[in-house]
Amino acid sequence: MAIHQATLTLRTRGAGTYEITDQVAQVLRSSGFAQGIATVFCAHTSCSLVLMENADPSARRDLEAWLDRLVPPDDPHFTHTAEGPDDMPSHIKMALTRSSESIPFANDELLLGTWQGIFLWEHRRAPHTRTVIVTLMT
Amino acid sequence: MAIHQATLTLRTRGAGTYEITDQVAQVLRSSGFAQGIATVFCAHTSCSLVLMENADPSARRDLEAWLDRLVPPDDPHFTHTAEGPDDMPSHIKMALTRSSESIPFANDELLLGTWQGIFLWEHRRAPHTRTVIVTLMT
Amino acid sequence: MAIHQATLTLRTRGAGTYEITDQVAQVLRSSGFAQGIATVFCAHTSCSLVLMENADPSARRDLEAWLDRLVPPDDPHFTHTAEGPDDMPSHIKMALTRSSESIPFANDELLLGTWQGIFLWEHRRAPHTRTVIVTLMT
Repeated sequence: MAIHQATLTLRTRGAGTYEITDQVAQVLRSSGFAQGIATVFCAHTSCSLVLMENADPSARRDLEAWLDRLVPPDDPHFTHTAEGPDDMPSHIKMALTRSSESIPFANDELLLGTWQGIFLWEHRRAPHTRTVIVTLMT
Repeated sequence: MAIHQATLTLRTRGAGTYEITDQVAQVLRSSGFAQGIATVFCAHTSCSLVLMENADPSARRDLEAWLDRLVPPDDPHFTHTAEGPDDMPSHIKMALTRSSESIPFANDELLLGTWQGIFLWEHRRAPHTRTVIVTLMT
Repeated sequence: MAIHQATLTLRTRGAGTYEITDQVAQVLRSSGFAQGIATVFCAHTSCSLVLMENADPSARRDLEAWLDRLVPPDDPHFTHTAEGPDDMPSHIKMALTRSSESIPFANDELLLGTWQGIFLWEHRRAPHTRTVIVTLMT
C-alpha cells in the first residue's frame, strides 16, 4: 500500500465548470503509481465536482443553464440570504452534484471514458480560490 | 496497507439532516491512522449523505425545504405508495444526493473544508435506526 | 495492500435501471479479498449509477418516471441537440445521480443494506454497450 496526496488550488472566475482532468493526471504521473484509485475531493459547500463530457462545450453550457433554471437565485422561500442571492442556490447545486469522486487508474492512466472529463463546478458568481484534494491509493 | 472499519448506528427523529462529523472523526482517532481515505457509506435507500455547511442551521433548513418542494409527497404519478406518501419521495431524494463519500485525511485529521460537515439526511418522517459504515484506508 | 480491478461490459436495452449487484459481488468473490472497499465507476456521461431498492420494481419505475418529468427531452432551451433529443437530458440525469460509488465489504461480502442494489442507469433510449470498472482494495 502506498498513498500519495496532493492539494490543487484553483482560481475560479465566476459560476461555471472548470476542467481539472490534466491537473489530476499530473498528480498521478508525479506519484509513479501504476494501478489503483484516485479520489478527488472538493473541500467546499458552494462548489462541487462533476464528471462531464469535455468534447463539445455546448453540453456543459446546457447543463449549467438547466441547473440555473432548476435552482433560481430569487426564490422567496430562502431565509439564508445574508451572503447574497447566489449563496443558497450554490449550496443546493452542490448537494445535487458531487463532493467526492473515486476514479480508477491502471497502466499509469486514469480510466476515464473517451469523452469524460473531471470538472470543478463553481456555483458562486464571484471569483473564488478553491481547494481540491487528490488522494491516490495503490 | 491497513483497513479499519466501524459501523455507526444512528437514531433519527424524523426527516432532516443529522451531523455525524464527530462520529467519523472519532473512528479516525481510534484507528491511529495518519493519512489516507475515509469512506462513509449509507446502507439505506430512503436516507442519504451530504457534505453541507455546518455553521448556520438556516442553510440546511433552506436546503431541506427546497428538496421537499422539488419532490412533494402528494405526487399523483407515484405507484409505489404502500409504505406511505413519504416513501417514494425518500427514494428520489436519496438518488439526488449521495450514498457514499470518500474524504481524505492527513495528520490524523479529516481534510474537510472550514464549514464542511458530514450529515446523514433522513428522508422518512418517522424515526428510524440507520447504519452508516466508516472504512479507513491508509 | 492489494488491488483487484475488473471491467464489466454491460449491454443496455434502452433507458432504465439495470441491476449489477451480482456482477460486482462476483468480482469480489473472484478476488478472494475479505475486507475493504469496492469502488464502482461508470465510464460514461450519459448513463450513471445509483444504489436503489431492489425488492419492488415499482419503486424504480417511479424513480425513473420522476426524473423523466424533471428533465423532459423537449426542453427548448437545449442547444446541444445534434445527438438527438435524449442526449442532453441524459447528461443532466447523469450529473444529478452518481458516476462512482465506494461500497465497503467484510467477511467476503458487500455491506449493502437489505434492500440496496447497485444499478447502472441508462439514460439513452437506444441500446448501448457500457463499461463499468470495479476496483477492490484490501
